[in-house]
Amino acid sequence: MNTRQPLNPTLAEVGEREAINLIAAHAPSPRNGDDAAVLEHDAPNSQTVVSTDMLVQNRHFRLDWSTPAEIGKKAITQNFADVEAMGARPKAALLALSVPAHTRVQFVAELARGIGERVVEYGAELVGGDITDGDAVVISVTAVGQLGGSLPELCLDRARPGQHVVASGEIGASAAGLALLQRFGRDNIPEEFAPLVQSHCAAKVPPGRGFVARSAGVSSMTDNSDGLIVDTRNIARRSNVSINLFSDAIAPSELLYAAAELLQADPWEWVLQGGEDHTLIGTTTSAAPTGYRVIGRVDHRSEGEVLIDGKTPLFDGGWSSFATST
Amino acid sequence: MNTRQPLNPTLAEVGEREAINLIAAHAPSPRNGDDAAVLEHDAPNSQTVVSTDMLVQNRHFRLDWSTPAEIGKKAITQNFADVEAMGARPKAALLALSVPAHTRVQFVAELARGIGERVVEYGAELVGGDITDGDAVVISVTAVGQLGGSLPELCLDRARPGQHVVASGEIGASAAGLALLQRFGRDNIPEEFAPLVQSHCAAKVPPGRGFVARSAGVSSMTDNSDGLIVDTRNIARRSNVSINLFSDAIAPSELLYAAAELLQADPWEWVLQGGEDHTLIGTTTSAAPTGYRVIGRVDHRSEGEVLIDGKTPLFDGGWSSFATST
Repeated sequence: MNTRQPLNPTLAEVGEREAINLIAAHAPSPRNGDDAAVLEHDAPNSQTVVSTDMLVQNRHFRLDWSTPAEIGKKAITQNFADVEAMGARPKAALLALSVPAHTRVQFVAELARGIGERVVEYGAELVGGDITDGDAVVISVTAVGQLGGSLPELCLDRARPGQHVVASGEIGASAAGLALLQRFGRDNIPEEFAPLVQSHCAAKVPPGRGFVARSAGVSSMTDNSDGLIVDTRNIARRSNVSINLFSDAIAPSELLYAAAELLQADPWEWVLQGGEDHTLIGTTTSAAPTGYRVIGRVDHRSEGEVLIDGKTPLFDGGWSSFATST
Repeated sequence: MNTRQPLNPTLAEVGEREAINLIAAHAPSPRNGDDAAVLEHDAPNSQTVVSTDMLVQNRHFRLDWSTPAEIGKKAITQNFADVEAMGARPKAALLALSVPAHTRVQFVAELARGIGERVVEYGAELVGGDITDGDAVVISVTAVGQLGGSLPELCLDRARPGQHVVASGEIGASAAGLALLQRFGRDNIPEEFAPLVQSHCAAKVPPGRGFVARSAGVSSMTDNSDGLIVDTRNIARRSNVSINLFSDAIAPSELLYAAAELLQADPWEWVLQGGEDHTLIGTTTSAAPTGYRVIGRVDHRSEGEVLIDGKTPLFDGGWSSFATST
């Protein structure tokens, strides 16, 4: 049926303007709609924190594994996690979106709904964006946060010997979810593993965890996006320290063991090099802040090694955008 | 030759880390390298202005028409123009980049060089980004600017009857450059038209023009990105006014006429619906600010029509990301 107002129209049928209106309807903000968005500051001395991450179809998500709303949520979470990892509060997001012209408008609406729901959880807004024709779905989100008060931001290079290593959030769940999707596809995964699939398709980072950490004395922080060992090593190298993780504190959950048994996999691989959980990992001289647990210790000055119970980890790779030849 | 260190390696051969290092070397900033970048504010009451634009290969640029450095410059200009059009100063940029793994590292280095050169012209910095594997080159830039002082930002809805319409920059040059590229390709365009090609491949917006406009009493402003009529109509509609442009003031230059003669084209089409010049277009009750000229007048309350010498424009279309069926 090629009527003037199709029931399930494509972007080519409705055009750019209508697509923008739909996005703004699902993720509204009074700051949206001009050449650029103007953000107010909460406090006179607050600083602005910015970060960007890009999700490419079939590399960071698959349309047969994730709903459009989940993809939107994932895009926000992984960007806002970077802002939280500085100890800042996410306040705004920008969305640049490339989609094929034959894409259903409904896809864009659902993507925007997921984005809108997730930004609202943070008390943030989608304040602007761009939409353009392209061969694949490419989602680029920029997160803007605010860092108030006079405490320093949580940098990678501020781990100090003697500190606790603390973490907030699950480790390995996203990788387990991915492994299940790879084996079974979305619709044939045993129901008990739904939380792992959810972790992969629309990971959550509780709003305010970074702010709490900064207020409670955490000095360095990152989020587990590329793998626990890789991301922890990032702190270790930048701070010139050695970090020792406690195997008891990061051991796979029962659900991970169950999934591993089903898939004949080693759940430690998911824990150590899985990534995409966006677990916040920090170091502090004080006690673990609310919502955090101790998972290790900063040992001594070094070139930046990460050990587990004093030994070299069994798995220490992680996500990298391009395969390396060496 | 498949040696360990090839002369002209691909991203797959050197990996993500090396690509990031190269970008940072060509567009350095001390704020880069953590989960997110922290920006300081110049003045206690300054506000942050953010905007994003995405460039997709073969839609917004072609690798046989533009050098990688030109693509980088264009990506910065079109984003910074949006910040200037608010009356703000661009201070920082973020780059999210999708590129095929077989891309030469040299391409990324040159792209970053163009970005680095252009941001420095604005006294700004590339403060962060993301690079990922993808089938096509997709460049997503976010611009961050600062709006100091107590004057309001330059919104689309602040044109008032009786104001002058003012413009800074050429109109139609980018479209003429594109038409020449489409006919001749990059290498066979007569030398005299080099400025038009340059306008298309690496348009410039002089830094500070938006700031000057805001200081000098301009109330509404946009940049000509989608076409003169389309973008001016954006102001007219949002402000509920009618805008009348003066044909004398926007008439094609001699160079545009020469290019049009060669191509058997109508240069008024380039002027009226060309776009991508990023000319700043504003309205003001005062005289035209330094660097601006009067090109029309805000007439009366209306639904937002744009006329030329009181008549309907001969061409009034413009760029839109998806073809519409109606």
